[in-house]
Amino acid sequence: MTEFRLDHDRAARTGIPEAVLCEHKSAAQIAAIGAAVMKAGQRMLFTRLRAETVAALPAELRDGLDYDPDSGTAFLGAAASAQAMIEGIGIVAAGTSDLPVAREAARTLAFHGYAAPLTADVGVTGLWRLTGQLEALRRHRIIIAVAGMEGALFTVLAGLVEAPVIAVASSVGYGVASGGRVALGVALASCAPGVVAVNIDNGFGAATAAIKILRCVGR
Amino acid sequence: MTEFRLDHDRAARTGIPEAVLCEHKSAAQIAAIGAAVMKAGQRMLFTRLRAETVAALPAELRDGLDYDPDSGTAFLGAAASAQAMIEGIGIVAAGTSDLPVAREAARTLAFHGYAAPLTADVGVTGLWRLTGQLEALRRHRIIIAVAGMEGALFTVLAGLVEAPVIAVASSVGYGVASGGRVALGVALASCAPGVVAVNIDNGFGAATAAIKILRCVGR
Amino acid sequence: MTEFRLDHDRAARTGIPEAVLCEHKSAAQIAAIGAAVMKAGQRMLFTRLRAETVAALPAELRDGLDYDPDSGTAFLGAAASAQAMIEGIGIVAAGTSDLPVAREAARTLAFHGYAAPLTADVGVTGLWRLTGQLEALRRHRIIIAVAGMEGALFTVLAGLVEAPVIAVASSVGYGVASGGRVALGVALASCAPGVVAVNIDNGFGAATAAIKILRCVGR
Amino acid sequence: MTEFRLDHDRAARTGIPEAVLCEHKSAAQIAAIGAAVMKAGQRMLFTRLRAETVAALPAELRDGLDYDPDSGTAFLGAAASAQAMIEGIGIVAAGTSDLPVAREAARTLAFHGYAAPLTADVGVTGLWRLTGQLEALRRHRIIIAVAGMEGALFTVLAGLVEAPVIAVASSVGYGVASGGRVALGVALASCAPGVVAVNIDNGFGAATAAIKILRCVGR
Amino acid sequence: MTEFRLDHDRAARTGIPEAVLCEHKSAAQIAAIGAAVMKAGQRMLFTRLRAETVAALPAELRDGLDYDPDSGTAFLGAAASAQAMIEGIGIVAAGTSDLPVAREAARTLAFHGYAAPLTADVGVTGLWRLTGQLEALRRHRIIIAVAGMEGALFTVLAGLVEAPVIAVASSVGYGVASGGRVALGVALASCAPGVVAVNIDNGFGAATAAIKILRCVGR
Amino acid sequence: MTEFRLDHDRAARTGIPEAVLCEHKSAAQIAAIGAAVMKAGQRMLFTRLRAETVAALPAELRDGLDYDPDSGTAFLGAAASAQAMIEGIGIVAAGTSDLPVAREAARTLAFHGYAAPLTADVGVTGLWRLTGQLEALRRHRIIIAVAGMEGALFTVLAGLVEAPVIAVASSVGYGVASGGRVALGVALASCAPGVVAVNIDNGFGAATAAIKILRCVGR
Amino acid sequence: MTEFRLDHDRAARTGIPEAVLCEHKSAAQIAAIGAAVMKAGQRMLFTRLRAETVAALPAELRDGLDYDPDSGTAFLGAAASAQAMIEGIGIVAAGTSDLPVAREAARTLAFHGYAAPLTADVGVTGLWRLTGQLEALRRHRIIIAVAGMEGALFTVLAGLVEAPVIAVASSVGYGVASGGRVALGVALASCAPGVVAVNIDNGFGAATAAIKILRCVGR
Amino acid sequence: MTEFRLDHDRAARTGIPEAVLCEHKSAAQIAAIGAAVMKAGQRMLFTRLRAETVAALPAELRDGLDYDPDSGTAFLGAAASAQAMIEGIGIVAAGTSDLPVAREAARTLAFHGYAAPLTADVGVTGLWRLTGQLEALRRHRIIIAVAGMEGALFTVLAGLVEAPVIAVASSVGYGVASGGRVALGVALASCAPGVVAVNIDNGFGAATAAIKILRCVGR
Repeated sequence: MTEFRLDHDRAARTGIPEAVLCEHKSAAQIAAIGAAVMKAGQRMLFTRLRAETVAALPAELRDGLDYDPDSGTAFLGAAASAQAMIEGIGIVAAGTSDLPVAREAARTLAFHGYAAPLTADVGVTGLWRLTGQLEALRRHRIIIAVAGMEGALFTVLAGLVEAPVIAVASSVGYGVASGGRVALGVALASCAPGVVAVNIDNGFGAATAAIKILRCVGR
Repeated sequence: MTEFRLDHDRAARTGIPEAVLCEHKSAAQIAAIGAAVMKAGQRMLFTRLRAETVAALPAELRDGLDYDPDSGTAFLGAAASAQAMIEGIGIVAAGTSDLPVAREAARTLAFHGYAAPLTADVGVTGLWRLTGQLEALRRHRIIIAVAGMEGALFTVLAGLVEAPVIAVASSVGYGVASGGRVALGVALASCAPGVVAVNIDNGFGAATAAIKILRCVGR
Repeated sequence: MTEFRLDHDRAARTGIPEAVLCEHKSAAQIAAIGAAVMKAGQRMLFTRLRAETVAALPAELRDGLDYDPDSGTAFLGAAASAQAMIEGIGIVAAGTSDLPVAREAARTLAFHGYAAPLTADVGVTGLWRLTGQLEALRRHRIIIAVAGMEGALFTVLAGLVEAPVIAVASSVGYGVASGGRVALGVALASCAPGVVAVNIDNGFGAATAAIKILRCVGR
Repeated sequence: MTEFRLDHDRAARTGIPEAVLCEHKSAAQIAAIGAAVMKAGQRMLFTRLRAETVAALPAELRDGLDYDPDSGTAFLGAAASAQAMIEGIGIVAAGTSDLPVAREAARTLAFHGYAAPLTADVGVTGLWRLTGQLEALRRHRIIIAVAGMEGALFTVLAGLVEAPVIAVASSVGYGVASGGRVALGVALASCAPGVVAVNIDNGFGAATAAIKILRCVGR
Repeated sequence: MTEFRLDHDRAARTGIPEAVLCEHKSAAQIAAIGAAVMKAGQRMLFTRLRAETVAALPAELRDGLDYDPDSGTAFLGAAASAQAMIEGIGIVAAGTSDLPVAREAARTLAFHGYAAPLTADVGVTGLWRLTGQLEALRRHRIIIAVAGMEGALFTVLAGLVEAPVIAVASSVGYGVASGGRVALGVALASCAPGVVAVNIDNGFGAATAAIKILRCVGR
Repeated sequence: MTEFRLDHDRAARTGIPEAVLCEHKSAAQIAAIGAAVMKAGQRMLFTRLRAETVAALPAELRDGLDYDPDSGTAFLGAAASAQAMIEGIGIVAAGTSDLPVAREAARTLAFHGYAAPLTADVGVTGLWRLTGQLEALRRHRIIIAVAGMEGALFTVLAGLVEAPVIAVASSVGYGVASGGRVALGVALASCAPGVVAVNIDNGFGAATAAIKILRCVGR
Repeated sequence: MTEFRLDHDRAARTGIPEAVLCEHKSAAQIAAIGAAVMKAGQRMLFTRLRAETVAALPAELRDGLDYDPDSGTAFLGAAASAQAMIEGIGIVAAGTSDLPVAREAARTLAFHGYAAPLTADVGVTGLWRLTGQLEALRRHRIIIAVAGMEGALFTVLAGLVEAPVIAVASSVGYGVASGGRVALGVALASCAPGVVAVNIDNGFGAATAAIKILRCVGR
Repeated sequence: MTEFRLDHDRAARTGIPEAVLCEHKSAAQIAAIGAAVMKAGQRMLFTRLRAETVAALPAELRDGLDYDPDSGTAFLGAAASAQAMIEGIGIVAAGTSDLPVAREAARTLAFHGYAAPLTADVGVTGLWRLTGQLEALRRHRIIIAVAGMEGALFTVLAGLVEAPVIAVASSVGYGVASGGRVALGVALASCAPGVVAVNIDNGFGAATAAIKILRCVGR
């Protein structure tokens, strides 16, 4: 039985090459995919990859990985050169706890050749934190915003900048906010124009959406 | 059978006299309560009283009511004199659609002798709307804030004023925000200090809490 | 008391002028807003405006409205000229029942000067319906997709086109799909890259997001 | 007290012999059931049996088990001979992560004497993966489809093949899709004719339903 | 714009011709579809069609419809001849209140040429009601079972007959059972082998699944 | 087809004769059941019977009904004589709005020959209301308690009396308490010993449980 | 500060002495309560007490405990003598996995001096399992029934016996049935008369309710 | 990149200095914040800080912390002197299991210079526990009440005292009450005037709200 089928053609078809979501996959399955990628001489992005799983991979694959434990992402294959990075996307994280999700977005962008400055700890409880960064934030063409708890950042930010905001609720929170549901609700119910949402914790999805937007619309 | 028992003593015991929530009660039940109140020579506040129900009440009771259709509230008995109104509480409504709930709070306060200026349409999508009112809002000792949809007002407001904020989610919204659940979630999950919540649409409850606070703490 | 505050400056600040969500507002409130807009000599988009409410508006305002009952939208003020319409956005509706939401998006776009061809009845049960339209769909720079029931369209479409897909779940469905929750879940959980979501039935929000994207990224 | 009652007669009555769901049962309870089965000279299928539990079983029972850790299933008693396997059922898994559930179905079928080829990694993001397998898939009389995340596979597949589709949502996913709820929603809300659903992760149930269908309808 | 696309080929591709779900569609939309069907000389099944909507259809279409108000279904085009009806499917309704859903299934089957005897009021509170019908029920090759409230019928029935059971939860119930959620939960969580589920109230879906099973498996 | 099967034997088997839940049944269906009951010379209790439905019943049946609009119940057949009423069960309603549910319980009891004094408006906000009735309440052998909103009555009452408490949450409430969910949660989560729950608004079920208890345990 | 207050008087007031729910309590807290009980020369029932916590208790207390790991219960103080056990209550468990909850009920009853025979593995998938025990079950005056998964046992049992049924949903299940929610829904929505429910897994509550019923009603 | 921005000015702006919620933050992140606070010569409150995390902090920071494992709080910087503690706030915990949340409130108050006597184990099942403390409780100007399970304490307490009650549902409970949802529902749906709620387990938020109330209203 064929356990997986690499979608070599996906980049041509949708603008974004395939990536591997490692959650729910065994080390053996990931190793098999990695071997196939290496054999095909391709590059691949792995997400939700835990350090324990990396440790269980064959040394040959493990050595080929550029692994970042904070975001749980790994690059297989040559990195994009830093000087050729494309600009236009900014990332904003409401709090320190939202950084892992923000970094998943940043790493996904980097893998595809996009530089994305990350502005952290701008939750709206202290509005000056956000307004103090506005001038820089207004230079971005698209903003990825990550927030947990009550997610008010999404609405306030979208009311202050012209760029569209891709909102990523993070699963940071407890009680009614546990699992990121309140923040996702805010992202979807926001009265501010131009806010769109992806799944909770889906930094990868926010990044690929931003890339598709830049590629299709900015061309 | 005794269908209801007036709690004449409640004001002495809890600081707030009893009120009648008319939702789920028949006109006959409300009429009986009203008659008992009039007979006892007392005052009474009725909430969630619909115009159709008022029309079905006996003329004698109806004539004695000071009824406000926008908030669905009615006063039975002498009004508090306007010049003796106690100050210190402010009401803020995020949008025009939130006014019925805000008015239920305002009418409840008026019935008990509290003046409460109402600041409307200060949703945070246009932050200037709120910041332009800040000087006035900072004069209040307690603020009742009403917001539906995504309720980001609660967090932003509480980050800007020193007064405690009693948040009332309103059931204004659709999709994920229908019934006021997202706004309530924000009120409870807010990162800003000093935000407390009452039930969705409960302008009455916010007002009585504000009164208890002023009476107990401000004495 | 000021019941509403027009945000004259919003277009400059966020790229999208303010609009009025009429749901939960009384005819009197809408009439007052309309009068203020006319007095200021501005244009305004009204959404979720029911025919009964239109009938209850003052004749002067009603006559000034370009009202579309299918989408529940009305334009106040001069229409954008058809020949100057900006292209690049396409709208796709999975089924006939999803058309009201799709039309809310189309009307919002038209009000702001964007032409958006609408492709209907391309649900993925009959995949040929969608694949038969692919050539035309691939010409769009952004696609707004509307689907209720199980919303599989979002994933299949995003796997076939390069453009980013703004997914709008519609509240068409029954049983587990009632209220549009399953379709929204699919939009958010989609494995296909480049799918972003707005609130259920929020054709207006999808349109404003598309405009912001075109303005900011396509500039 | 009798802790369990073997249903020796169930195969005659319902067409499917009893099986033991080991989740929530202690090793001691499973051991007692196994001993009774062996004593009665019967065969038995165990599902949701974890490797740790197997290790805690008495050696005599453990040695008699044909245990498969990937699916968590064990056979007690003589295996069905491979050459006598009945054909007609196919299994499809959307992604690599869905394989444990698909294998629970495959093993259940094998225990009862049914061969069921497993086609993996045919998620609809890359539609070619599915369409490339269509010719083979169309040969099946019944198809068991396993998918997590957004489960669009169910609808697309059922729109392409004539065979009825038994949809098994897998609990693969995160955020709104955690626990398999979105995929189950899609299975139930699918617009495509001929999709029926079993509980999340219930590969066993899908297999027994397929067998009952083949036995009753195909006779 | 093309508002709908008839899927003439669906029967050949999936074994079941297309049908029209009328809920959420306007009379004008239904009339347009009906006219296209008549023009093409085809037959069509309409479901969830309310009497008020029928009354609003053009006379020409209305006269061509065989409309059944109890089930909300209508046939357009020549009826299948009664003597040619295919047997093998039985329908069971737990209570009198479940009959509309059971009849949607029966009418769908009749439209496609299948006779399906309906056994009603066999809820398991009075087990004799069900056991008294067992002999007849055991003659069916597939059983469609409809139950609301707590849906225990699904499990008990599947433990007594050899035929697979397609369970349709009906939205009959109140309190925790409102909307049919408990009955659906029972259908999915049933310990009895061979129970598969479709969406709440989806008599149409149960019927088409039964037909696909008979066609594919029984051939 | 037989649309219904009267369970003549149920009283002998379970101690409680069958009753007819009229919600979700048409007037025609109810009329047919009523005719069969009258023909068999039996008695029958109808619940959830709305005045409009009564008006639509055949005069012969309507005249034979002892209908109570407040509780939506009707008796068909000779009433139990008042002097022979069995004592031991008490009913408590937290507020005036909970009376319809309390009366459904009272009428169900009366139909079966049980007298049940009803104590109303004893919500725990004014604890004296409840404690003032304690002496009388302590004389009951079983207490049926009805409460909506936050249902604190269940716990407080069960902590004060020796009798078991059958808790019926009523669907009186709004916001988070809408539909009776909070009150049901309290009934189930109560720390007080001896509280058992039935479905929301199920006064009938509470009454039949009380009868079964008296019959089986009190014999 | 006083961390706990023993309710010495509860037995006199409510018929049931206090017990200690150990979940969420630290070993130190439990030890302090135990010491106070021993000092007062009283008896006490501990529930939800895990073996790890028992191991962490002071030896003096631990030695005084009659601990049963299967049910997580412990008795402190002299046991009731077996020959003086009161009869009348029966316990039924649908499956082997439901035994821990059933045993919590049995142990609670034993602590208070009630003998309660436990009938296990009578799930309704094999109806003969239940009907074969009916004669014995019909001798009980009250039945405590424990079931997880889809809980159909509650309805079937209550339709077959005259005794009232106290239904305890157990948190045995997965997918839609995880946490016991479906079984609880069935217990509450059951059409069978005389079913009352307690919280999920609350064997203790079912037992105390049964005792209160026997004491108050059976006196 | 700046990972965090200390809000030095927050006390001046909102009356409450910033605090650090340690849940979801790594030891490295907390260490960096602590170092910055020490460098700035400020004080800081840390909440939700687990003992394992404390153990992983640099010795220099760890030695400067006044850590309380029961509440998971730590003070960095000089403690407020005990003799200068401000009075007026009382804390009430329904049960022993609610103490960690009550202590989070108490420690937050102590950090800011407020003394708050803690009254424990006053759940309303034994009403005497609460009424016996009433005289002392009535001396407080504000009461923070913590309760899990069914939370009836909130309503009963607010009906007995004049002070406003800040209700904190604790996540103590199981079955329907798991996660604190029922208690939160009661807090929000309470019929008693003057109950306001904060998020589940949010002792910190209740304390800061109480402080803001005392500061703003009591000034």
